[in-house]
Amino acid sequence: MRVIQKFGGTSVADADRIRHVAGQVARRIRNGDQVVVVVSAMGNRTDELIDLALSVSPDPEPRELDQLLATGEHMSAALMAMALQAMGQEAIGLTGSQAGIYSRAAHGAGRIERIDADRIEDELRSGRIPIVAGFQGVTEELDYVTLGRGASDLTAVALGVALQADRCETYKDVEGVYTADPRVVPNARRLIDLHYEEMLEMATQGSQVMHNRAVELAATHELPILVASSMIDVPGTLIHGGPEMEERNRVRSVVDDHDIAKVTLRHVPDQRGIAARIFEPLAEAAISVDTIVQNASEQKLTDLTFTIAHEDLRRAEGLMESICESIGANGYTTETNLGKVSIVGAGIQTESGYAARMFRALADANVNIDLITTSEIRITCIVHSDHVGKAVNALHKAFGLDQEA
Amino acid sequence: MRVIQKFGGTSVADADRIRHVAGQVARRIRNGDQVVVVVSAMGNRTDELIDLALSVSPDPEPRELDQLLATGEHMSAALMAMALQAMGQEAIGLTGSQAGIYSRAAHGAGRIERIDADRIEDELRSGRIPIVAGFQGVTEELDYVTLGRGASDLTAVALGVALQADRCETYKDVEGVYTADPRVVPNARRLIDLHYEEMLEMATQGSQVMHNRAVELAATHELPILVASSMIDVPGTLIHGGPEMEERNRVRSVVDDHDIAKVTLRHVPDQRGIAARIFEPLAEAAISVDTIVQNASEQKLTDLTFTIAHEDLRRAEGLMESICESIGANGYTTETNLGKVSIVGAGIQTESGYAARMFRALADANVNIDLITTSEIRITCIVHSDHVGKAVNALHKAFGLDQEA
Repeated sequence: MRVIQKFGGTSVADADRIRHVAGQVARRIRNGDQVVVVVSAMGNRTDELIDLALSVSPDPEPRELDQLLATGEHMSAALMAMALQAMGQEAIGLTGSQAGIYSRAAHGAGRIERIDADRIEDELRSGRIPIVAGFQGVTEELDYVTLGRGASDLTAVALGVALQADRCETYKDVEGVYTADPRVVPNARRLIDLHYEEMLEMATQGSQVMHNRAVELAATHELPILVASSMIDVPGTLIHGGPEMEERNRVRSVVDDHDIAKVTLRHVPDQRGIAARIFEPLAEAAISVDTIVQNASEQKLTDLTFTIAHEDLRRAEGLMESICESIGANGYTTETNLGKVSIVGAGIQTESGYAARMFRALADANVNIDLITTSEIRITCIVHSDHVGKAVNALHKAFGLDQEA
Repeated sequence: MRVIQKFGGTSVADADRIRHVAGQVARRIRNGDQVVVVVSAMGNRTDELIDLALSVSPDPEPRELDQLLATGEHMSAALMAMALQAMGQEAIGLTGSQAGIYSRAAHGAGRIERIDADRIEDELRSGRIPIVAGFQGVTEELDYVTLGRGASDLTAVALGVALQADRCETYKDVEGVYTADPRVVPNARRLIDLHYEEMLEMATQGSQVMHNRAVELAATHELPILVASSMIDVPGTLIHGGPEMEERNRVRSVVDDHDIAKVTLRHVPDQRGIAARIFEPLAEAAISVDTIVQNASEQKLTDLTFTIAHEDLRRAEGLMESICESIGANGYTTETNLGKVSIVGAGIQTESGYAARMFRALADANVNIDLITTSEIRITCIVHSDHVGKAVNALHKAFGLDQEA
């Protein structure tokens, strides 16, 4: 079996963990598998490098920040190769440049454009384990472009696709994907498997387990992803699209998210093109808008509400005055201290009754719902941030997620 | 004027110093000069990275160690570029790979093979200051090859040659080249200028001020090198080969070196090819032999003595048994706790009397001479390490180096 094994920052946080993980890789090789390893930066290395950048410049240029951050993964790749070599296993550390991972130059939020896998295939043929620096690609000029937070997952999946791997295994500081965040719901259970779309909704709605673009790419190419722990030997969660999935049409997981802010535009004239004039300036400022709710109205004036990450609120407020003016709205209000709680499961929308059960469970738990949005396989409620914890627990119980599947 | 400015580890040790140095570079640009910057790793970063490597592997593979060490200079280059940008000065950090510095793959002791300066010239034309990571090149496969300790000097000179710079300025934690190490001789004076060959002898005989291969390369291409301090605004020392040199045929500097070990092969048969059979195995083990003395003898048996760095002694001893056997020598002895003291000055050998004055000065200071070697412009004595300090001071005084030139 050809497999990509990706190890996150916690799994390579220090020399002991690097040696531990190297041992796991070496065992896998002895079992006859062909392995390509992808590594993140050690522990908090990326944050340390950002702090260092901020110590020389209040607003570091994105191109230079990427050059700096890329060194974090270079270090991990070289150290992991050394650890494997010390165990008598041939290995070679590769930067994004050496691994042939080419990106477009949106520094800090690059996209993988293509992978020239010749070098990696050569190394595999020579019996060396390629250890690839995650989180980065290079432009045609060999400038580093980082792919965004948590994007080593994306490197691993993209390599899996390029190398036609049988599966991609991502080792993290969690044992798999859970029915809810175990820090919030103590009796949350690890899921044995999960459909790509379910994982994608969970990633988009606040689950930190997998990078959403990684899941998207794996789904497109039907590359199975295993999410497992590098510390504890448990089977983990397999994300796939295969027919051997667990029973469908049920809630698989409750996902929570925090630090949400809400912006309401008051008395917006109900004209064609209004939405574009509101959201285009936000998009240009790279402010990601999540939920949008416009109350249908028989009058000519309506309220329009949207949510954004709390950290983007100040920048959004800087734009709202001119937006209000351009569309003729009667000002805006903001609200913070909000959170999100979602139920996710393939087929939720097609089966009736899930929404009603969700609202009943929240009402019984005395949770007020501020906004509601839905997708094919998800129902999301915006609630006060103080209520997120009890909301998640109530839903976890109401949909029987605490019971063995 | 087109100039290469190279800043050593101390000059970029932390954010404050990086900003300080960036200010110097920016002032230089405002004065109308065209500048290419070369940086070393911050402070003790290279040693920290070596320690990290040793924590995952007792004997890290040289290729992976180079991959790891190269990140030290990558960091400095990115941070220096950020600091310049924060001052409103366009700049771009370049790795050895991006700067087009190609090396042969002798990992840890690479040689610069060629420099493809297109990218650097492009950046200069665009008005950006290229900040190049020193100490490294890449193979055609883009694998990093480090060039040896202190070799950022070499990067700077090689770039100066490739870019046809008017001069190369190396900023260090010293104010220039001195008549002797100021830590040993308190009244040592800074030299205004120095001939390439004098600097080369000094570098080879233990002066840490400039990398010897860098001086060699500068001499071949007649590129003047300024050695100056990045902290204190003094003129520094200009190393060149021009006609405006100070008066020749005199001692310019006293150089000391420490931690020398001596190996004596006893009763070596005086046959052709013996020396090769002794020194080839040492060269293959990358043990650098310094002084070699063979006492001419009318007998068929002679003693042969050579000196090496103390840190290489254990590895040399591992080879001596088989060397003795192969040449039929009657065993070997070793001696440690030795140091070296040299007087350097163009024309020393052609003028008479320098050697006699040196030996007289050492005798008057009660320093026993263990071995003597000479070159065109240098006389070196091996002495007990406890005597190095008083030997240097005695010679500094005897040759009038404490007087204004």
